[in-house]
Amino acid sequence: MNDSKAIPIGFIGLGIMGRNMAAHLQAAGYPLHLFNRSRAGAEALLAAGAEWHDTPAGVAAASAITITMVGLPADVESVYLGAGGLVASALPGAMLIDMTTSSPVLAQRIAAAAAARDIEAIDAPVSGGEIGARNAKLAIMVGGTTTAFDRALPLLRLMGSTIVHQGGAGCGQHAKMANQIVIASTMLGVCEGLAYAKASGLDPQTVLQAISGGAAGGFLLANMGPKMLAGDFSAGFFTEHFLKDMGIALDEATRRDLDLPGLALAESLYRALSLAGHGRDGTQVLFRHYQQAESVSGD
Amino acid sequence: MNDSKAIPIGFIGLGIMGRNMAAHLQAAGYPLHLFNRSRAGAEALLAAGAEWHDTPAGVAAASAITITMVGLPADVESVYLGAGGLVASALPGAMLIDMTTSSPVLAQRIAAAAAARDIEAIDAPVSGGEIGARNAKLAIMVGGTTTAFDRALPLLRLMGSTIVHQGGAGCGQHAKMANQIVIASTMLGVCEGLAYAKASGLDPQTVLQAISGGAAGGFLLANMGPKMLAGDFSAGFFTEHFLKDMGIALDEATRRDLDLPGLALAESLYRALSLAGHGRDGTQVLFRHYQQAESVSGD
Repeated sequence: MNDSKAIPIGFIGLGIMGRNMAAHLQAAGYPLHLFNRSRAGAEALLAAGAEWHDTPAGVAAASAITITMVGLPADVESVYLGAGGLVASALPGAMLIDMTTSSPVLAQRIAAAAAARDIEAIDAPVSGGEIGARNAKLAIMVGGTTTAFDRALPLLRLMGSTIVHQGGAGCGQHAKMANQIVIASTMLGVCEGLAYAKASGLDPQTVLQAISGGAAGGFLLANMGPKMLAGDFSAGFFTEHFLKDMGIALDEATRRDLDLPGLALAESLYRALSLAGHGRDGTQVLFRHYQQAESVSGD
Repeated sequence: MNDSKAIPIGFIGLGIMGRNMAAHLQAAGYPLHLFNRSRAGAEALLAAGAEWHDTPAGVAAASAITITMVGLPADVESVYLGAGGLVASALPGAMLIDMTTSSPVLAQRIAAAAAARDIEAIDAPVSGGEIGARNAKLAIMVGGTTTAFDRALPLLRLMGSTIVHQGGAGCGQHAKMANQIVIASTMLGVCEGLAYAKASGLDPQTVLQAISGGAAGGFLLANMGPKMLAGDFSAGFFTEHFLKDMGIALDEATRRDLDLPGLALAESLYRALSLAGHGRDGTQVLFRHYQQAESVSGD
């Protein structure tokens, strides 16, 4: 569309989300520089012309803007602030965009360390899952300076449909925490409503169809409800990642003396499922908790 | 549209929901026969030609199909099964449609008592609130025979956009319970997410805008979120009615050995609000619980 497409873009973290997001940048003509823990996740992008690097530092040295979509806050910290990390390796004037859902405090530390090297760093976590990533319909919540937000916007628009500047560094992560908090209890509601429908002898598919059109309707009922009823617990979004998010949110809420009992309940049920070996299942696996209760009761 | 428009329709219960629903039937040309505890709720319909009756029995005697939208299961029981109730007063061959959210077991009792007098009775509770009632966009969940469902359908289509036959008598109420169960925990999520956004210093309006586009998005976030943030707790749907629904759902779940901790948590928080005098506020008043916590903490 314009000359900016010649800007080399780094992308680190090519899991379910990252590889779909990076593909939109590549399709728009941006030359990509990639690093991922396993090269397999990068193959499709490499076949389409992206360049592989053996380290995050290699990506940063080759890119004007580097985007990260990794797993845990510990991974973010290591990739950004560790030896050979992005803050140390990026060129002055470069930009770093962390789209991982991570700690607001860590995002502030990264932004401060980056600023000291004349690098712009923003936090831009997303919501919308694999479906949103594949269809470039993610909601993207951005924390950082207005200048940095404006600079990132053309790239973010290729990956998302709702892109909102939430405030300074860390505010994107805070907004994402708010998002995850809404989701946590909503997942309880979706599971419990469908479990009740089954237990009361209704056809839960018919119930799902009916209630999706009313006040209970929403993204999770529409997208997770059918998977739950089909027993499809494959991961669009890993339970272990959601647990991590809920842990951060609970910590941040506690720091503010804010009691969030719905979130605490959801975290506790998900933790039990993760300990039982469901950490790599999708978040819709919460439905199993209610199915277990059902089979124990002998219904 | 056809001759059926001359069929006299009874409507009992003209609160926020009922008066909006009845207005659609009147607009479609059906002659209405009305009863309500206070005549004031009927005035607009009477001014447009509806006929007032001093008792439910008077309505039933004048109507081929009588619709009820009253408050509590005790009201339903009294209107249908009490002395001078609809089952005793309706003409043989008539039809009774209870659109109140009520007990599945009571719906089965009413259907059986009605059948003994050659009257068809169905349960057809709704979701979608005042907005849905006003715009004829309700989700309507129907329990009863297929014959009765088919007979009711032309009327229900004037009030709702998603009308689903869930099974025999009581199944509409069970489906509505599933709906309320989804809503209960989703309300926790909406409140907690917005309370977190405020507590973390973000602009909650901006957060609401951003997260509505992602996986947290849904009817309640879109419709209740703005009211919560505006401090508008006026009732589209009364907290005391929602409490009644949650009580029925918890009873039915317990009868099936089904543990629904999200529902139990929501019921407990709503009960505290009702005891504190918020029973006639709308269900979005749950947000007050988190605001109280906030002010106690001194933030």
